[in-house]
Amino acid sequence: MLQPAVPELTSIAHEHDALVIADTVTSIGGVELKVDEWGIDVAYAGPQKCLSCPPGASPLTLNDQAMEKVLTREEDARSWYLDLSLLEGYWGEERAYHHTAPITNVYAIREALRLVAEEGIEERWARHRRVAGALKAGFVAMGLEMNAPDEYWLPSLNAVRVPNGVDDGAVIDYLLEKYDLEIASGLGDLEGEIWRIGCMGASATPKNVSLVVSALADALQQQGFDADAGAAVDAVAEHL
Amino acid sequence: MLQPAVPELTSIAHEHDALVIADTVTSIGGVELKVDEWGIDVAYAGPQKCLSCPPGASPLTLNDQAMEKVLTREEDARSWYLDLSLLEGYWGEERAYHHTAPITNVYAIREALRLVAEEGIEERWARHRRVAGALKAGFVAMGLEMNAPDEYWLPSLNAVRVPNGVDDGAVIDYLLEKYDLEIASGLGDLEGEIWRIGCMGASATPKNVSLVVSALADALQQQGFDADAGAAVDAVAEHL
Repeated sequence: MLQPAVPELTSIAHEHDALVIADTVTSIGGVELKVDEWGIDVAYAGPQKCLSCPPGASPLTLNDQAMEKVLTREEDARSWYLDLSLLEGYWGEERAYHHTAPITNVYAIREALRLVAEEGIEERWARHRRVAGALKAGFVAMGLEMNAPDEYWLPSLNAVRVPNGVDDGAVIDYLLEKYDLEIASGLGDLEGEIWRIGCMGASATPKNVSLVVSALADALQQQGFDADAGAAVDAVAEHL
Repeated sequence: MLQPAVPELTSIAHEHDALVIADTVTSIGGVELKVDEWGIDVAYAGPQKCLSCPPGASPLTLNDQAMEKVLTREEDARSWYLDLSLLEGYWGEERAYHHTAPITNVYAIREALRLVAEEGIEERWARHRRVAGALKAGFVAMGLEMNAPDEYWLPSLNAVRVPNGVDDGAVIDYLLEKYDLEIASGLGDLEGEIWRIGCMGASATPKNVSLVVSALADALQQQGFDADAGAAVDAVAEHL
């Protein structure tokens, strides 16, 4: 789900002298994200979602308050690898050796960010909203229900409810086998309840939306669910 | 330095119910390494040295005793990322999702290991001994001293003593600037005392040895040290 209340949450946390860490893996490069403006103290991300970059190295940011917390901790970090005070010595002016950098992954992130800059970050957010909006319109038109209310809809990862009587795993297998298309199941409490359907980065294209919508309608029909493929295709076209 | 006493050390450790972890970063793929036969319980390595693979993902092995220790620890691991019990669930039969794998790095290691298999691991060890042996012969012939006694000589990383009166950093800078050749300084107690000169994987070639030996002789002469370049070149040729 999208988390529109971030600025409110960080402001409450700060009133109580707490810092806020945000998982931005599925938002960075795909949906609006304003780390400093929203008062996020620490944010980590991944390069392999809306940045469309091979996984391996991850963006991370800490503001001054968070870094001070790191540098004044009472007990030493137990992990050498993830000790940010050591990483600070490596990344900072001191350049104290800490680890051998994953060079190819760093070049990959640089290239991914270059492509974001070329497109423009706000244009990129708009593309995700437009393209994933067509996906959502297609799902709804074929008779599916989105898991979250509209204000929490996350363009980059669309959580769709599994209709009653439909086997979520059978649909996943069918799509993979027949269309070479992978969608994900729900995790934890939502296991078997939803599908998670990505619309991220370089793959957030009208062409992919059309494929996913028609393939899913086919898979649902195989499962005996009366998916309206025609209405879905129309809705996609109209939205785009 | 090479550590020839590993089997003795592990055997003593095991008599005292201790497990042994070995840093094999500079040996894997370059010098003899027999993890199980030598009684090493845990070994980690890096792909970027004698395997000549981009850094980013690292080989790791634990034997059954070490894994049992991991799975029966009294306090939970504090790191999610490095919690081997979670990784076991991911790598094992359960295939429980833990992290997004660094795919390109995994492919890179696979290719690096394919090249090792093509050459043959024992042939590879022999190549490192032969080629680095020529490097060592060249250093000694030009009047330098190796840091470790012969039985501790590590072919993949040659520790050479900085002669009296020579500025180790000036030599490093000169080699980098004039020859695009990087050698490393000593760390910790050995800072300023030694250079560390790699002879690893794909770069362990006669051509590189000739370059390093003549370039280092030149750099030393610039520093006023009377390096015998002719004797060094002859010694390299003879050794090869």
